Amino acid sequence: MTKTRARLYRQLAPEGWERFGLSPTNKLVCLLILLAAFTAVIETEAGIRDAAPFVFDTLEAGFAILFTVEYLARIYAAGEDPRYGGIAGRLRYMLSWWALVDLLAILPFFLGFIAINNAFLLRLLRIVRLLRLSRLGRFSQAWSALAEAVKARMHELLLSLGLAGLLLLFSSACLYVVEAAHQPEAFGSVPRALWWSIATLTTVGYGDVTPITAWGKLFAGVTAIAGIGLIAMPTGILAAACSNAFQKKNAREEQ
Amino acid sequence: MTKTRARLYRQLAPEGWERFGLSPTNKLVCLLILLAAFTAVIETEAGIRDAAPFVFDTLEAGFAILFTVEYLARIYAAGEDPRYGGIAGRLRYMLSWWALVDLLAILPFFLGFIAINNAFLLRLLRIVRLLRLSRLGRFSQAWSALAEAVKARMHELLLSLGLAGLLLLFSSACLYVVEAAHQPEAFGSVPRALWWSIATLTTVGYGDVTPITAWGKLFAGVTAIAGIGLIAMPTGILAAACSNAFQKKNAREEQ
Amino acid sequence: MTKTRARLYRQLAPEGWERFGLSPTNKLVCLLILLAAFTAVIETEAGIRDAAPFVFDTLEAGFAILFTVEYLARIYAAGEDPRYGGIAGRLRYMLSWWALVDLLAILPFFLGFIAINNAFLLRLLRIVRLLRLSRLGRFSQAWSALAEAVKARMHELLLSLGLAGLLLLFSSACLYVVEAAHQPEAFGSVPRALWWSIATLTTVGYGDVTPITAWGKLFAGVTAIAGIGLIAMPTGILAAACSNAFQKKNAREEQ
Amino acid sequence: MTKTRARLYRQLAPEGWERFGLSPTNKLVCLLILLAAFTAVIETEAGIRDAAPFVFDTLEAGFAILFTVEYLARIYAAGEDPRYGGIAGRLRYMLSWWALVDLLAILPFFLGFIAINNAFLLRLLRIVRLLRLSRLGRFSQAWSALAEAVKARMHELLLSLGLAGLLLLFSSACLYVVEAAHQPEAFGSVPRALWWSIATLTTVGYGDVTPITAWGKLFAGVTAIAGIGLIAMPTGILAAACSNAFQKKNAREEQ
Repeated sequence: MTKTRARLYRQLAPEGWERFGLSPTNKLVCLLILLAAFTAVIETEAGIRDAAPFVFDTLEAGFAILFTVEYLARIYAAGEDPRYGGIAGRLRYMLSWWALVDLLAILPFFLGFIAINNAFLLRLLRIVRLLRLSRLGRFSQAWSALAEAVKARMHELLLSLGLAGLLLLFSSACLYVVEAAHQPEAFGSVPRALWWSIATLTTVGYGDVTPITAWGKLFAGVTAIAGIGLIAMPTGILAAACSNAFQKKNAREEQ
Repeated sequence: MTKTRARLYRQLAPEGWERFGLSPTNKLVCLLILLAAFTAVIETEAGIRDAAPFVFDTLEAGFAILFTVEYLARIYAAGEDPRYGGIAGRLRYMLSWWALVDLLAILPFFLGFIAINNAFLLRLLRIVRLLRLSRLGRFSQAWSALAEAVKARMHELLLSLGLAGLLLLFSSACLYVVEAAHQPEAFGSVPRALWWSIATLTTVGYGDVTPITAWGKLFAGVTAIAGIGLIAMPTGILAAACSNAFQKKNAREEQ
Repeated sequence: MTKTRARLYRQLAPEGWERFGLSPTNKLVCLLILLAAFTAVIETEAGIRDAAPFVFDTLEAGFAILFTVEYLARIYAAGEDPRYGGIAGRLRYMLSWWALVDLLAILPFFLGFIAINNAFLLRLLRIVRLLRLSRLGRFSQAWSALAEAVKARMHELLLSLGLAGLLLLFSSACLYVVEAAHQPEAFGSVPRALWWSIATLTTVGYGDVTPITAWGKLFAGVTAIAGIGLIAMPTGILAAACSNAFQKKNAREEQ
Repeated sequence: MTKTRARLYRQLAPEGWERFGLSPTNKLVCLLILLAAFTAVIETEAGIRDAAPFVFDTLEAGFAILFTVEYLARIYAAGEDPRYGGIAGRLRYMLSWWALVDLLAILPFFLGFIAINNAFLLRLLRIVRLLRLSRLGRFSQAWSALAEAVKARMHELLLSLGLAGLLLLFSSACLYVVEAAHQPEAFGSVPRALWWSIATLTTVGYGDVTPITAWGKLFAGVTAIAGIGLIAMPTGILAAACSNAFQKKNAREEQ
């Protein structure tokens, strides 16, 4: 019995797999997660779902059962981990962040009374579990390198986000002042002008709302050019941080 | 009395706070600035303001009184700083850049006769005060690193801005020459074509104005591809400058 | 006879040319490929083709004959390479990746019965042959430097692509939930919302589909700002990787 | 006489000014160039020109006369340079690249019979002269650093431009194949589809032309994501090259 639990733990817990990458079971789980997400996405298209509603309902039920079995197996196997031994340990495990995500992902099937839209978002939540598995598998080094780069320059990145926020606020305030009288629908208040401002500063530029007065176009032009700085600043910070993180990683590997 | 002033100075002047980050009072001021800005922004939406005009007027009066008290307290506490001692020193302080910003931010309330739009911009000006506080608080190192990076490569950044300006001018001149006859409204003069040119070179691309002749599309295509260079150049310069500034900072910290 | 083959091999096989860059014959082939691609592209414009259909048919026949002669010459010359000696070696050569591309590029002319659109894509395939020639000519060092940079950080790049995919999925799911009822045509299912989501996250922003509800605009704004991270992340990784690859290359050259 | 020439040379030829930056005369010339360009740009707006046509004609005549005087003075002063001594040397100088640009910039005024649009472009050409002056003045170091960075990685940059060209070609070919039947006006030929393709790959995204079929949207999505690589690649190369060029410059300065 204990041997089965040890085997299950080795297969299910990414920390328990001593070799490189993920265990075969976890690879299968990844595949199931992707399939379930794909099904959930495709199903939202009414034309596709209506062609074979039974197939989709069966698939959903199948995924829910498989993920439930997996959830129960994970709880059972968690006992291998000294932190989660015994009944109290299992309860602690069930309240851990990842176990709650696992639970949320199977709940909507069993609580059929939840509105369909919310259920859809919960089902999509399953895909977050991929993050946990990838963080512990083949991509673990890439994760740690990128996380180190972002963490090392967190203050600089937050600062450039703050400056971006100020820029957003001032450009939308300027446009509000000069355009409100001419386009009350689009620029009649600062929150409305913010929609235009975000589209411009991120260089998305939908074009559903554009200034029409000369002053508005002048401010918009300045905003668009400032938007380049908004993109260049975090990119430059990240590039420098990545460069540093990769060098450290290489230095560690050479030792 | 002097002790009170010393205490006030320690709490209000960011230079006077010897510990890391900001003093509790300045943290509160930051929060008040954010709240006041949020109120000012929300209030511009007629639907929201009309629902409870009294609330907004009271809030605005409250903020104005709080910031006035803060302004007077800062002037009083400034005497702690040897540069601003005595009446003459206080006057010098009141003419300093930041004190003027503080004054401008409370003025519109007391001068009720200013047109409402301008008053709105002045009220928004308060948010600039966040910059001063953040520059001296927790983000001071991030500020200095980014400022050092930008300053070290100022000439290169200005040069790429100048080249961008030339590119803007020539692309709008070309489009004016080939499109003016077909779209006089949008390309009838170089300043008009400049609107299209900025939207294209910054890759915003609203699409409210696009060339329709074959030559116009050809020039526009070349402009759009050149726009990538326009983004890549300052990003590359900033990345290199950040990399250098962060390395220097790390070297200093290791010593 | 063998001398002719050796000469042909030296001229045709990029590996056989001992000097820097490409052999004169291969330069001519590059020129022919570019001309043939240009003709194939221009020809799709009905107005141009109809002006002189005979010219285009003759050109296409000419290119097909030249590339056939080149194909046969390459097969003949391949015998110089010890791997492809004799009849069996020639067959092996004909089944190699690049030889198949060469064959696919001349096939459509001889199999006139293929539908015109597919034939067009096959004719365009010829241009892929430029890649092979450039990889062995003057650009060989640039190729290897860039390939090394991309390969060294493949996991980090794939990870940021994966995160981008998650972001795409969640932003389209959110927009689907809040906008489906108001714009069923554009946001009626997650795959439909994905079209908007890609345009926004890549900052393309066509503007053919934009959210109209307040919640939709809020989510869209967050998506657009996240899109900057989506661009900054791979750019930063590539910049750091290029920096490393170029330094290694410089170090090798100095030795 | 020779002393006047030496003085003129010192003031006019940027190489002749031994101190940092530009000579006072050349600073004035820069200002005049900017003013002349500004006048030429503003004048294209019919409403502005019609308000005071006489002012603009006088200004243009004034600029033309000043630049003619400057041109003649430069030819005279060129004799100071050993390369351009005597009559033959002056002729050689007049055929040098920059002297021809100077000539082209004053020609349109004296040849009044040229069509107005072309004359406008020639007048704008004057602004190119700013490049020469900036290259020798305060921005000379920034110019050389950026030029060194671009030159050192020219092959890599050209290669990424070539890959971008291939991407453009294939994405427009795919869209042509799948969309031609549905939108003959926008995707009826590869050159027409190229317009959409450039707007998408550079992330400009005007939105005047967008795919409407499911396959078209699929290819467009892939193109848009590939467009991020198209921006990231040259940015990464430039960042790495700038980083290297700045380090070399710093090392030189420290010696």
